[in-house]
Amino acid sequence: MKESLRYALLEAQLELARQASRSVVLVVTGHAAAGKTALINELNHRLENRLTEVHALAPSSEERERPYWWRYWRRLPARGRVGVFVHGWYGDALFARTEQRLGEGAFHDRLAEIRAFEAELAAENVAIVKLWLDIDRDVQGRHLKALWHDPERAWQVKDHDWQRHLQYHALDALGREMREATEADHAPWLRLAGGPEETPIKALAQRLVAAMAGPLPDVESPLTTPTAGIGAPPRLSDLDAASPEAMDKATYRERLKEAQARLAGNAREIQRRRIPVVLAFEGQDAAGKGGCIHRLTSALDARQYRVHRIAAPSEEERAHPWAWRFWQRLPLDGRVAIFDRSWYGRVLVECVEGLAEPAAWRRGYDEIRRFERQLLAHGAVLGKLFLAVDKDEQLRRFRARAETPHKRHKLTEEDWRNRERWDDYRRAIDDIFVHTHDVDGGWALIDANDKRRARLAVLDHVNRLLEARLAEPR
Amino acid sequence: MKESLRYALLEAQLELARQASRSVVLVVTGHAAAGKTALINELNHRLENRLTEVHALAPSSEERERPYWWRYWRRLPARGRVGVFVHGWYGDALFARTEQRLGEGAFHDRLAEIRAFEAELAAENVAIVKLWLDIDRDVQGRHLKALWHDPERAWQVKDHDWQRHLQYHALDALGREMREATEADHAPWLRLAGGPEETPIKALAQRLVAAMAGPLPDVESPLTTPTAGIGAPPRLSDLDAASPEAMDKATYRERLKEAQARLAGNAREIQRRRIPVVLAFEGQDAAGKGGCIHRLTSALDARQYRVHRIAAPSEEERAHPWAWRFWQRLPLDGRVAIFDRSWYGRVLVECVEGLAEPAAWRRGYDEIRRFERQLLAHGAVLGKLFLAVDKDEQLRRFRARAETPHKRHKLTEEDWRNRERWDDYRRAIDDIFVHTHDVDGGWALIDANDKRRARLAVLDHVNRLLEARLAEPR
Repeated sequence: MKESLRYALLEAQLELARQASRSVVLVVTGHAAAGKTALINELNHRLENRLTEVHALAPSSEERERPYWWRYWRRLPARGRVGVFVHGWYGDALFARTEQRLGEGAFHDRLAEIRAFEAELAAENVAIVKLWLDIDRDVQGRHLKALWHDPERAWQVKDHDWQRHLQYHALDALGREMREATEADHAPWLRLAGGPEETPIKALAQRLVAAMAGPLPDVESPLTTPTAGIGAPPRLSDLDAASPEAMDKATYRERLKEAQARLAGNAREIQRRRIPVVLAFEGQDAAGKGGCIHRLTSALDARQYRVHRIAAPSEEERAHPWAWRFWQRLPLDGRVAIFDRSWYGRVLVECVEGLAEPAAWRRGYDEIRRFERQLLAHGAVLGKLFLAVDKDEQLRRFRARAETPHKRHKLTEEDWRNRERWDDYRRAIDDIFVHTHDVDGGWALIDANDKRRARLAVLDHVNRLLEARLAEPR
Repeated sequence: MKESLRYALLEAQLELARQASRSVVLVVTGHAAAGKTALINELNHRLENRLTEVHALAPSSEERERPYWWRYWRRLPARGRVGVFVHGWYGDALFARTEQRLGEGAFHDRLAEIRAFEAELAAENVAIVKLWLDIDRDVQGRHLKALWHDPERAWQVKDHDWQRHLQYHALDALGREMREATEADHAPWLRLAGGPEETPIKALAQRLVAAMAGPLPDVESPLTTPTAGIGAPPRLSDLDAASPEAMDKATYRERLKEAQARLAGNAREIQRRRIPVVLAFEGQDAAGKGGCIHRLTSALDARQYRVHRIAAPSEEERAHPWAWRFWQRLPLDGRVAIFDRSWYGRVLVECVEGLAEPAAWRRGYDEIRRFERQLLAHGAVLGKLFLAVDKDEQLRRFRARAETPHKRHKLTEEDWRNRERWDDYRRAIDDIFVHTHDVDGGWALIDANDKRRARLAVLDHVNRLLEARLAEPR
């Protein structure tokens, strides 16, 4: 590589780190013996190692017990950094297909997921470079044999290299199909000739300089088709009729005990069958989310669940794509993650504050849909619960909070400000129901004007979700 | 639990979160069937779940491939939060001993590690509460039988509960020994009567309120005995004699190639044998750490190593005890972690800036020694390299940096400031050598006045470290 290109690469990387406004992801895949390792090593020696992370994955037990994409989300470089993925999601898909671990349909689904994943990253200022390293089949065979007969280098040849040599034509065709299906302006493929004689470092370095310092391309977001609805989505006005009268304490206590016993049994079975559960709670301020969550967790073993309160993002969270903070919190199989406010905050706030342009707003919904689908694809039970109070009831609760010393901390200036935009929020909430009331991810709209009824309704809804899953054949 | 105590607990926890100046760690262990689970569940329902994390460990593959304490370090609550460990490090030690996975000597070593671990946390404002739940042996037996014969609750009885009932007396004696060995003002034991009739939530809640809101006790730091030296530690003045003349380029290139080939072979063998390697680089500004690291990594497979640059801590790092950031970066078995500046920054800065009181300074050294010992106990190769330049050579390099566009970013105001305190740093560095030149963790002092010789010396030192380990019987 010419010295001038070398400095350009280093300069671009230092500027990337200084600005910390984007990150760069490089995926390198292709044929066996095409010199992937040599190329990555050479590249890596040209980069500032302290700002670079190279990932060659052998999934750990923590990764296998979470949705497929978790292993990549957790490894995404923070803004200002470079992440290099050896084979990455492309190698995964390619080899799983040739080894028949993915059927044809599943392979195409995976390609669609890849498209969506990359579009999501690109929209969050991740510059993506994808490299396919080519080699002629005969050259590959001769090179593998030469290595094999050289005692110094025979270790470089793994069983799977021979396997991939035998499957050269299948891999070549799949590779082409994969590249065509995932080509995009925001994540273009670079196809370079490798092999024993060539290390196309120059072309790769040029592309990387562009990714680090060039303009970020527009994102062509492949919008996910909403799945068929599961009946009409709820609407807040469904609750406008007079709420049922308050439940008396004795009845409540008895029913609560029953529902919690039922939940305890269901939760044990969920744990035994290693089914992950994700519950998202949304609701107006003072709707009683905390109290409902408390009645849920009171029936659960403390070791089984974790409650995540979603508030302002941390420094580390701000340095990663938006969804990263939710991926980080996904439960292991058999565990329950309860989100007190959730990924819906994004579409709520963007919509109410009028921040979002239509494209960003559509993208928000799209990311949410795909996030939830990935949970479901991994076999998670997903519950989404909205606790609704009316405007008078909220006022009563705000006042009660202001007057009760141990509750005063719950009431903030922001609560009053949000209250002023009551109707805007109502519209945004109904929008959420319309756009995300999907198969397996339906909303439960809970009338929360009576706390006791609301808590029982929450328990009942969660119990029914778990029982429906437990009734499915394994 | 009385309502007043309940509010006191919640108030204390909210204040803990508001101040975010300390965290609380609760470990609950004791006899089987003493009601541990019920107690933790009940406690957890009194706490603010969004600020609490409950950990019951079944080590993952990522945890088994790192030093023992990594699994606890990664789970330490951030300041403002509460971490509850079910059995935690005490259950680990206890059951490993009764199941003969730990011999008597190893058990005592573990108790010493626990003392040191807790002292380290306490010194970083972690309030520690340790609960041993007692039960009479006969009551335990009757209770286990009653559960076993109740179809609704039989699932609660695990095989290990019977095992622990049979070993009651051994566990009781070991428990007593363990409590006595780890009792400290900063990490006191609470021993409470449990069993089917009693859930001593009140006593536990009172203790927790004190831990959250009470004064933090003085830490009695159990200083680690330095291990026998490995000969005299190096001194910077060893290099004061005239440096050897600069090596010519041709000789350098040839030797570099040889040394890198040797390193490549050693690194492959290290990976094959799954030996983790940790290399810490220290040195004066402009001593050429980056260049030396670069010549090391040029010989390594990009997938095998990671370079960690230690600079100002992030928000998340500041919310955890000091050593957390280094624990977070420990490599998996077979991988190489290279630290560009390291945990020695602490004693250097504290000493030079005169910040540290003698006690804090001793504690810093003590933590470093224990951190390194834990790496070694896990089987890691640990290399510590100090690159030294003389004052004139540093000035030449500063000037060269200022004049070279692509190197200018490396020179900061702070570099000039540090240079003014050259002699203070020299004293602090010699102190480091004296205090941490331990068996298996010896310092290599590298004359870095000639860059070529320095790079070769670094490669040679690392090669010799790896070869010494590879020569050991497995």
